[in-house]
Amino acid sequence: MALIRYENLKSVFEKILLKTGFSTTDAALCAKIFTDSTADGYHSHGVNRFPVFIKTITDGYVQMNVQPERQLALGSFERWDGKLGPGPLNAHFCMKRAIELAKASGMGCVALQNGSHWMRGGSYGWQAAENGCIALCFTNTMPNMPSWGAKEANTGNNPLIMAVPDADGHIVLDMSLSQFSYGKMEKYAMEGKHLPFDGGFNSEGKHTADPNEILETQRLFPTGYWKGSGMSILVDLLVTLLSSGMSTAKIGGLEAEYGLSQVFLCFDAEQMNNHSRHKALVDDIINHITNAMPEHEGKPIEYPGSQTKKRRAEHMKNGIPINDEVWQTLLDIQNQSE
Amino acid sequence: MALIRYENLKSVFEKILLKTGFSTTDAALCAKIFTDSTADGYHSHGVNRFPVFIKTITDGYVQMNVQPERQLALGSFERWDGKLGPGPLNAHFCMKRAIELAKASGMGCVALQNGSHWMRGGSYGWQAAENGCIALCFTNTMPNMPSWGAKEANTGNNPLIMAVPDADGHIVLDMSLSQFSYGKMEKYAMEGKHLPFDGGFNSEGKHTADPNEILETQRLFPTGYWKGSGMSILVDLLVTLLSSGMSTAKIGGLEAEYGLSQVFLCFDAEQMNNHSRHKALVDDIINHITNAMPEHEGKPIEYPGSQTKKRRAEHMKNGIPINDEVWQTLLDIQNQSE
Repeated sequence: MALIRYENLKSVFEKILLKTGFSTTDAALCAKIFTDSTADGYHSHGVNRFPVFIKTITDGYVQMNVQPERQLALGSFERWDGKLGPGPLNAHFCMKRAIELAKASGMGCVALQNGSHWMRGGSYGWQAAENGCIALCFTNTMPNMPSWGAKEANTGNNPLIMAVPDADGHIVLDMSLSQFSYGKMEKYAMEGKHLPFDGGFNSEGKHTADPNEILETQRLFPTGYWKGSGMSILVDLLVTLLSSGMSTAKIGGLEAEYGLSQVFLCFDAEQMNNHSRHKALVDDIINHITNAMPEHEGKPIEYPGSQTKKRRAEHMKNGIPINDEVWQTLLDIQNQSE
Repeated sequence: MALIRYENLKSVFEKILLKTGFSTTDAALCAKIFTDSTADGYHSHGVNRFPVFIKTITDGYVQMNVQPERQLALGSFERWDGKLGPGPLNAHFCMKRAIELAKASGMGCVALQNGSHWMRGGSYGWQAAENGCIALCFTNTMPNMPSWGAKEANTGNNPLIMAVPDADGHIVLDMSLSQFSYGKMEKYAMEGKHLPFDGGFNSEGKHTADPNEILETQRLFPTGYWKGSGMSILVDLLVTLLSSGMSTAKIGGLEAEYGLSQVFLCFDAEQMNNHSRHKALVDDIINHITNAMPEHEGKPIEYPGSQTKKRRAEHMKNGIPINDEVWQTLLDIQNQSE
């Protein structure tokens, strides 16, 4: 495990992006998003995913240097066409626009058609919170999960994000709608471990916590069984209808996962409550969570974002731990493209 | 089990509400909401709950004949004070207002402070869909669920609703954020059955599907464990901050469950896509769900709202099955108040 400084990692990302053909501004922003995700501990959608991200561009599925174009404006709602541009740049742009709309009149919503995979959805939740906004974001994905009662992948794990700004560290929920991600199951399988809970069906149709069995059937559980299944269908409907873009069904018919539909919704916290009222309301909720009797004595009760904050501080101080092989791959790509 | 006609049930509700002191208009609307919920098969928040609803009024926690008052208007966002009026009337009013705002400019959002229990959240999803709107609704509740890592109830099961209009029957998701409700666990316990999945912790801190063990510890699982836990915290933050109302923590300090915070968000489907485009997008998604290989051969794959439609049709044709004792209690209340 290498310990890499934030600035070092960011600079490697940036160099590769520039050599790939990104503009200076886009390369800097895109590198920042990937570095932040890694610094926050979301390697699966940060450094570990970066080579795949570059490949979607060199394979021609994701387009560089396109500009999103507005398709529809209705009051505080806007629809933009992402022109199949890089997912993180499109998503960042749309959240920026939703924040602007919210600052202008309390609430703003931007729907994006022809986006690409936004990588770590939490990025846009943090972006909103850092700009003083309460936010919800939704995306669809390619079909990767059977809906409840189905045996084959007919819906996506369609992540959703919710974010609230707080002076003591923002509160950000970033979750997909499968109980365990493929990445998580592969990690447990590699370590020869079982999942902490049943995570899907085995080939006999029985519930299992053995990640290998689920990786074989690809019949993973939605979050909370029928509940996550219902949510994934509704999130797909929401993002598809608001963006008038591609649904999970349509994306499943493409040769790769691109052209996703996304929604970014913002409320300006300051227009909702003045600073002291906002702080009092948030503290009241968070203290009620963390002051409860813990399941394991002495183990603090966490809430969405609390662990991210700690990881980020630790990584900024001591460097970001990155798998040696992943780091070497990155350096190889950087050198290849030189 | 009695089979009661829709109009008969509605008329009994209406009479009781009038005798309790509701205005003619309020009694008619409130009776319709309770009857619709029961006709749709949601007895737990329909006929079975009605006596409890009346008691919250006679106990003085819920106020009759108050009018919601607007506290804040920011473009398409409004905040209303529900003055602790009847939950279903306040929620119906706010959704009606959110629909009006959405019709006026594409999107509308209403946050409600000092609401009361809205009974069946799906009611307001159906209301939006019947008016051609795509909707999301959120509410908090009293603390009734331990957050992940906690041993005592420090968060609510904070239901959320998502709705999409469709000419072939609206698509409505209505879910709370606990894996099983107390009502469901009590039903299984009465029938001497285990839950279909582990639903919480027993007194030794082990996962269990025995409803009696969970009813004893009150340590029920959030939907999808840590995921539903995170969502419940964020839903509470969202509704509390937008309404500037009471949080789950605050509600837990009251002598009963009232004064809830709620959010109603609407998008006018017609302004998002013309009729044929809307229908094509929805059909594409729903067909992709229902045409997949089913888990059990010959058993259709359901999606949110599909079973409600069937139940409603059946009950409108043959009458609504109601537990004899529940029906007798209702008739007794009606006669008492005469």
